[in-house]
This record gives sequence, structure tokens and C-alpha cells, in this order.
Amino acid sequence: MADVASTHDFTITPAPGGVTAPAGFRSAALHCGIKAAPGRLDLAVIAADAPASAAALFTTNLAQAAPVLVSRQHIQGTSGMARAIVVNSGCANACTGTAGMNDAKTMAAETAAGIGCRPEEVLVASTGVIGVALPIDKVVTGIRTATAGLARGKGGETAKAIMTTDPFPKEHAVTVQTAKGTFTIGGTAKGSGMIEPNMATMLGFLTTDADVSPALLQKALRESAIDTFNAITVDGECSTNDTLFALASGASGVRIDEATYPALLQGMLEVSRELAIGIVRGGEGATKLIAVTVRDARTRDDARQVARTIANSPLVKTAVHGADPNWGRIVAAAGRAGVTFDVGRATVHVGGILLFENGLPHDEAAPQAAEYLKGDTIDIEVSLGGGQQSATIWGCDLSAEYVKINGEYRT
Amino acid sequence: MADVASTHDFTITPAPGGVTAPAGFRSAALHCGIKAAPGRLDLAVIAADAPASAAALFTTNLAQAAPVLVSRQHIQGTSGMARAIVVNSGCANACTGTAGMNDAKTMAAETAAGIGCRPEEVLVASTGVIGVALPIDKVVTGIRTATAGLARGKGGETAKAIMTTDPFPKEHAVTVQTAKGTFTIGGTAKGSGMIEPNMATMLGFLTTDADVSPALLQKALRESAIDTFNAITVDGECSTNDTLFALASGASGVRIDEATYPALLQGMLEVSRELAIGIVRGGEGATKLIAVTVRDARTRDDARQVARTIANSPLVKTAVHGADPNWGRIVAAAGRAGVTFDVGRATVHVGGILLFENGLPHDEAAPQAAEYLKGDTIDIEVSLGGGQQSATIWGCDLSAEYVKINGEYRT
Repeated sequence: MADVASTHDFTITPAPGGVTAPAGFRSAALHCGIKAAPGRLDLAVIAADAPASAAALFTTNLAQAAPVLVSRQHIQGTSGMARAIVVNSGCANACTGTAGMNDAKTMAAETAAGIGCRPEEVLVASTGVIGVALPIDKVVTGIRTATAGLARGKGGETAKAIMTTDPFPKEHAVTVQTAKGTFTIGGTAKGSGMIEPNMATMLGFLTTDADVSPALLQKALRESAIDTFNAITVDGECSTNDTLFALASGASGVRIDEATYPALLQGMLEVSRELAIGIVRGGEGATKLIAVTVRDARTRDDARQVARTIANSPLVKTAVHGADPNWGRIVAAAGRAGVTFDVGRATVHVGGILLFENGLPHDEAAPQAAEYLKGDTIDIEVSLGGGQQSATIWGCDLSAEYVKINGEYRT
Repeated sequence: MADVASTHDFTITPAPGGVTAPAGFRSAALHCGIKAAPGRLDLAVIAADAPASAAALFTTNLAQAAPVLVSRQHIQGTSGMARAIVVNSGCANACTGTAGMNDAKTMAAETAAGIGCRPEEVLVASTGVIGVALPIDKVVTGIRTATAGLARGKGGETAKAIMTTDPFPKEHAVTVQTAKGTFTIGGTAKGSGMIEPNMATMLGFLTTDADVSPALLQKALRESAIDTFNAITVDGECSTNDTLFALASGASGVRIDEATYPALLQGMLEVSRELAIGIVRGGEGATKLIAVTVRDARTRDDARQVARTIANSPLVKTAVHGADPNWGRIVAAAGRAGVTFDVGRATVHVGGILLFENGLPHDEAAPQAAEYLKGDTIDIEVSLGGGQQSATIWGCDLSAEYVKINGEYRT
């Protein structure tokens, strides 16, 4: 990609920071008191210096949390313009009825008052326990402090403030050089449990200083999510609060049009993939990242469906956890995925080691595969032997720790 | 049901024994050497004294084991007549290619030679590790010994011989009194992991001395499986070997026709339900049986789909394991099941205790529900508030032991 003569050429380079890496964004994070642990960050505001193009994807769960319902109203009401995102962790504000809706609206209104915009220009997100009311007085006090302290370079704190059971914060940024100029894309995400491939992240926020219309930003967000946030699974659970927001300030002056759209999309893909993989690597109890690639499928949907079934299989996940090269479980999971293929023409590779071919095992390779499975990044590759499409789904192993975390989450 | 004047009336009473409880059946079980542990039963033959009506349901997995392929050929070839079932545990004979097909055919041929029938009159089943060849010489020797030692009253040993990770054997029998006479239904089943609601049992065998045509027996088997073997889940995994066989000897002289069919169906339902629930209660690492009933759905399929999603939810399963009345996870699982309903009209009861209604929790009931969840049989009831159909799916909790069992199964 060194040749930038063509308008389709661009160069993408990792950059420091997260949501405040692009020009035109500030953020603040603090402990307002939702989480019991003193000082543990639980509230953040990400603000654009001027009205920004906004895009959003929400959970497909029928049970949708108050912040999801309010944010959808807001982004529709402004036709895709926003000034800020306000987010809390520790409480999902889901299944909280009319009071919960009022709390989500209050969060937007207080944020709007703090930065000087209309409440509809604020998007709201929450993550945490379902069915518990927000301590709204504490949240309001927190929002007033946060909006008074917005600054560049606080993206890292924001990444921490949205964590629940996440073992580490997740942020990433890239700069995108195009013939028309350079822009930056940053992002943060959280999620550790209740993660499945249909709007998978519990929360993800992307920012960019590219100058892009709301419609084109929405298109790029949707397209980049398919193979990133919607291609991960921790436990097959789709939550009530899953939300992905993108804000574009335009501060770089680089206008996104037909020529530069591929650069924006590729940049968003890279930031989203990094964050999505971070979610899976930090999955509840996870000790290994598992990348399941299905090749030679008739359609991409077929490839995805088989890859998802393998990535969600408790028997595959526990076998990987135990470093057991049990390719039989991979074949069995593929076979029940609801996609037709010829098992006799399928192959299974683990870490590039061929374990199954022509309907028969390669037992001589099992010791080598067992050794490979002791690592922390596991590639599983299945060929369906019947087409030209492929897809990758990222998952993680299933450990006793997952059971411990989720058996004791509230108690 | 005391009034037996009408031909539709019948009385069902539990009876001792299992597959040899009905007249006309003998069995034998032994250790032939597939399992490493000395003396651990791993081979069984169930034989009818004369050609019996036969019915079968097989796994819907695309990867089908050799015994499944051979048994399907056999039952089609005889138009639903059989003399025997030969079954081994410790090796699934799946993904074993042409050699595996030959081994399954050899099992049928040796059994046929031992009891004096055609190989096509023998049904074959295997359960255990995938991708490993049978020690066919040991199996042949075992079959010769078994067919020479067939007897009544050995159903209990047969139930043990089909176990893999099952913590206890599963058998059940009932006598069915009708105006036309009394007949008996017996059965055994195994299964502990790789259990999901689409032909759920790894192996289940029913016998009856009712006099029933192959077609009517197949109908009764299919209808009784829907709400029993196909209504259970341990881990959402559908195996390569799932097989359910029914044999009817006719030895009771009670002819099954339109008038007595309901009695046969109800009897098969009761035996199948007992065995199916036994499979779940003995699920890998399971400490609690979870019965998920979904009511007030528009269709039975809707009710089943929502109940299955809840029963398979790792977050619901771990919450029950930890005795955490986390109804939010139940609502979230129902909401992602792909069935449309109004969450605001839904209710959630756990052990009859109302936890969620009108979109809001009943937090005051949480301590009582937590106490209830310490038991070993958990009823979860969800009303979708929008129809008149209901369905129950039986599942189990997810424990660290499940991870341990499946991370170390082969190693």
C-alpha cells in the first residue's frame, strides 16, 4: 500500500490512545458510587466539541434496556447527529420499567446541561446487573463533575470506567493516511460475559475525526461490525444492553466520499477487530483465544454458521481448555450446525496440523496438536470442501472459572 | 382412570425391571475389553424370541456413525422387523471410514449367527469416543458369549453396559392395563454429555410385548420422543450416534389398534420421560435438574424454542448452580430466543415464586427463591402472556465438574 497515487490507496498505522485519539473529542471518567468498591470507575462521558455524525447498532434481544430505547429515540430524532455519549457500569438499567426510562433520560439531560446541547444529542449506555435501579442522585452528581472535567487524553480512564467482569480495559486507535489527508479512528469496548455473535459487544464506542455523513458512518459501522463485533462469542448470550456507537467529528478535514470510504471502512475494521478480539480474550474465565475459520463453504453465511456452532460448542471449548486435540467434537459440532456439506470431503486443522481428512483421523498428529493446544491463541480451521466462501469467528475456552464467576456474580 | 368400560380407558402402573420386563425379550451384558477398567460392562445384546416390530429414530447430525448408517439400512431392508439390538460402549465407531462400517456389519452378523437370524434383523448402536476403531476381535468374542447367555431379568446389566460418563444406570418399565388386556413397556437409556434436544439421547432402547405393527410403533416412538428424549438438553450438543430403538414382541397378545393406541403412546411417554429425565439428572457434572416450562405462547414450537434457549443458557445454568435467583438472565435468554412476545406481559416464576412481572422485578421474593434454588430439582416457569400453548424442556445446571470432565475426557 506504499503507492498513494490512486485515491483508493491508503496506509493504516496503529496510534496511541482510544476514544480521544481523534481530534475533536474529550472525555472524563470517575467513580460516582454505583460500584461498591471505593474509587472503582463507573461513569464516563465522551463528548464531541461540536455536533458530530453519529451511528449506532443495538442489541436484537426483545428485552431492551432503557438506555437502548432512549438512545434509539435520540439518534432517530436528530437524524444521526450527537454531541456526547454518557455511560455507566455496574448497573444495566434493564427491566427497570418507567423509572428506568426516566433515569436514562435524566442521564442524557444532565449530560446535555453540562456540555450545552439538547438532551436528544446525547446517547446513553449502561452495563451491569439487570433489574436493579440506578442510584440516580449519585449518577447525576457524577455527570456534573464529569462534564466539568472533560479533557483530551483521558480515553484510558474511559476504557476502565465501562468495565464489569472484564479483566483488562480495551482501547485501540489507528491513523489512516489517504491521498486527501490523514484522519484518526479510536475506540473502546467492554464485554466479558453475555457475549454472542448478534451485536456481540455489550458496549463499544468508536470515534473518528474523519468528516463523514451520518448515513455513510452508519454503513461503515454496520459493515465493519459483521466481521468483528458480530463475529465473536464468549457464551452465546446476547444481552439486553448491547450497544455500538460511532461518532465522527470531522475535525481532520478529510471528507469521506466514494474514494475514501474504503479507507474509513478498513480503519474501522482494524479498530473494531482489535477491540472485539480483546473482548473474547478477556471473556469470563477465558484462558485461550480460539479463532475458528471455516473455508470452502457455499456461502459466507454457511461458513459463519458452522464457525459459530464450533466456537459455541461447550465440548470444543472444554477440549481446548484441557489441551485435548479432540477433533471428533469439532466434526460433531460442524455436523449439527444446520449447514449441508459432505463430511467425507471435510478437513480439520488445529494450529495448521491436519487432524481429520477423508472421513478419518490423523492420529499420528495428535501429540503435536496437544502440544500446540497448550498455547493461549488457538487456530481451528475447517474446510467444508464444497465452495469458495470463508469466515472467522472468535471465541474462547470454557473454564471452571466461568462457572465460578457466573454462579457467584450477584451473591 | 379407574373406569375401564370405555376402550380408551387404561391404567398405567410402574413395574420392576427394564428392557426385559416385557415378555418375549432376553438380554446379556458383559465386559469384552473395549473399556480399559477390568470388569466394566461394555457390550450388551437385547434379543426378541421371535421377529419383533421395530422402530428407530436417529441423530440429525450430518456426521453419522457407522452403527447409525448400518442400522438405518437394516430397518429399512426389513420394513421394520428386528430380532436383536447389539450395543457397545467405550467407542462410538464414528469417523472410522470403511473399516468402521465393516465393524458395525460384523457386529450385526455375529449377533445374527448367535441367535439364528439374518444380519439385517439386527440393529447396532455404539457410544463412546469418536474416531477410534473398535477392537473388533474382542467385540466378536464378546458377542458370541453374550448371545449364548441371553436371559430374562438381565435388563439391569444392560443398562450398565451402555454407560459412558453416566453416573448411574437408567431403566424403567410400566404395565398398561386396557380393556383388551395388559401389556408391559420397558426401556433403558444412556447419555450424559453431548446431549441436545434434537434426538437427544445418545442411546435409548424401548421394548414392549404389545402386538403392534412397525408403522404404528414408529408413530408412537416419534410422538413420545417429542416431549421426552427430544425435550432434554445437557449441553446443546447433538452427537454422531444418537439412536432410539423400540422393539415390540407381541407376546402379551394385546393388539394395538385405534382404540388401544392411546394406551401404548401414554405408556411409552411415561417410560421415555422417566429415562429422559434420568439422562439430564445424570448429565455431566450436573447437580440439579432444571424443568423449564414456557406457557401462554402462540404455538408449541414457540414455547419449546424459548424453553430450550433458557435451558441451554450458560448464564441461567451457572446461576442455578450457584443458587442465584438471577431472573434477569432468564428474561434475557427468552428475549434472544427468536420468538416474538411482549416482555411487559411476561412473567417469571422460580419454584412457584413470582420474580418478574409487568417488566419489573419482585425483589422482595429473591431471598425465598435463593433458598428454593438450593434444592436439586428446579422449576422455572415463564409465561409469554400471548397465547395458550406450553412446553417443558428439561436441562441441568453447569458446574465446574462439567469443565473438568470434558477437559480431561481423553487425556
